[in-house]
Amino acid sequence: MFFEGSEKKAEIWIEPTSGSLRALPYSFWKQIVSLAKADILSQMGNDKCDAYLLSESSLFVWDHKIVILTCGLSTLIDCINGFIDAIGVNNIKLLTYQRKNEYVAHLQSSTFIEDIAMLRQRLAGSACRVGHLDHHHHFIFTSGAFNQIAPQDKTCEVLMYHISGIVADYLRTQQQSIAKIYSLLQLDELFAGFTYDAHLFTPLGFSINGIKDNFYYTIHITPQEKSSYVSIETNVDLNHYPIDIAAKLLAILQPRSWDFIGFNIQISSPNTPENICLGHCSYPVKQGYNIHFSHYQQLCPEVLIPEYL
Amino acid sequence: MFFEGSEKKAEIWIEPTSGSLRALPYSFWKQIVSLAKADILSQMGNDKCDAYLLSESSLFVWDHKIVILTCGLSTLIDCINGFIDAIGVNNIKLLTYQRKNEYVAHLQSSTFIEDIAMLRQRLAGSACRVGHLDHHHHFIFTSGAFNQIAPQDKTCEVLMYHISGIVADYLRTQQQSIAKIYSLLQLDELFAGFTYDAHLFTPLGFSINGIKDNFYYTIHITPQEKSSYVSIETNVDLNHYPIDIAAKLLAILQPRSWDFIGFNIQISSPNTPENICLGHCSYPVKQGYNIHFSHYQQLCPEVLIPEYL
Repeated sequence: MFFEGSEKKAEIWIEPTSGSLRALPYSFWKQIVSLAKADILSQMGNDKCDAYLLSESSLFVWDHKIVILTCGLSTLIDCINGFIDAIGVNNIKLLTYQRKNEYVAHLQSSTFIEDIAMLRQRLAGSACRVGHLDHHHHFIFTSGAFNQIAPQDKTCEVLMYHISGIVADYLRTQQQSIAKIYSLLQLDELFAGFTYDAHLFTPLGFSINGIKDNFYYTIHITPQEKSSYVSIETNVDLNHYPIDIAAKLLAILQPRSWDFIGFNIQISSPNTPENICLGHCSYPVKQGYNIHFSHYQQLCPEVLIPEYL
Repeated sequence: MFFEGSEKKAEIWIEPTSGSLRALPYSFWKQIVSLAKADILSQMGNDKCDAYLLSESSLFVWDHKIVILTCGLSTLIDCINGFIDAIGVNNIKLLTYQRKNEYVAHLQSSTFIEDIAMLRQRLAGSACRVGHLDHHHHFIFTSGAFNQIAPQDKTCEVLMYHISGIVADYLRTQQQSIAKIYSLLQLDELFAGFTYDAHLFTPLGFSINGIKDNFYYTIHITPQEKSSYVSIETNVDLNHYPIDIAAKLLAILQPRSWDFIGFNIQISSPNTPENICLGHCSYPVKQGYNIHFSHYQQLCPEVLIPEYL
């Protein structure tokens, strides 16, 4: 029942002079995501953005930018390299590539260090690890010229581990529906006005993409009991929004621990459930991002269940 | 500067009818530890026990029992299999094999799951993981008949991560001496009356074995700044001893986080530094052990330093 929910993620901006990415045909994206060992399950779009639900997470395409997340044993680095080669390395304006430490890292076909060695054959860039090796940590590679990114360009990631409670229990049942999950997560309220596209996986798992104008959100749920993981990622400014989306989703999904990662935004944890920030870190990258990372854990000790092997 | 301090560990009891292990020649042990990619650096003994300092941790030999710990990229499973084959599988009374999740697991030549698949070709046994996959966790395999172990047979492991303070700083300098480290760790007081044998590694690292009658302790220090690790292991009953050894060593080495593992003993954390038990677990194994695991972390949030790659 184990599934590696943790995503690898890339955000790539291209030079506006190189045409619109949204003019590229479906067959192009199908081929590009296949390099990461992913398929396109469905697609939707609005005036600004196309959103693809993948067999391994999500792809968003704007005129001059893509965001792609892939989980499981996907090989996102091959997809990134394929994209750079197809677009032409001189047309790449900015690239960030990010990996979370996996639950079972040795199953992955490459390490982050190996990934960026390949990437650096195409693009110069700097790479960083935040978080101790024996704890939750993230690797981030960034490439591009100075100050490409405006301060108002923000990305929020809320990553949850070991979810519990009524909604987590429901997500582990066999008789689920997209409508019921959408309702339990209160997404109609949290992301009001967003068009969405969702998928239920067999035996377990839920993905949803939402778009509204230039904004996107994407939620991926790996509910498997011993390695549950939920990621919420959005370019909505969570600190200036009518609802505290992070607090709401933490209350609904009740994780034991969670990470906040913000690009040009520092997200704070709610007080409920009672929790402690075990470590945090902020640092600037020359492309114009201030990157913020923090890891929280519920304050009450957990009685661990031995897992027989 | 990275070194994997986390040990793999085996404790093996043989049938008393199969003679004394201490009668086996030095060449036997040299060959056995070489299977784990380790060398014997030095040796000492008393009436009950021989203690070997290894290039990768320690070996203790009693008449009918061995305890071996090896760190780094050592292949302890090969050593265990070689020992079983040399002694004869029918002469193995009890075996425990334990692995801590490593800082960089993918550098290891095998996983615990692969190790026990090999071991199970020789010996039946049950295996367990305590602790979540995304947090500190330990794997323990046990083999042997019911109730081989008396309740008064205890082993304590205190494992520390990210040490800090004056002693940690000294351990990272180039001009160290065994005598000074022995004094800074207050081992004369903590393990009074123990004979000891210690080694300083190049560029960094410290190991010490101590024995007194049937009792042993062993301390291994990997002080490297970004992946520091200290293990203290002993069959002294830490809960019934004139000094609180765990509290003293925690105060001296000031780790950010630590694990207690007790076989037939449950060790409690001192209050200083202010800390929280994030998870704990107790379970019995049929050979007669109650195994206790707990993980602690300092309560104050840590400002993490990004590590450039």
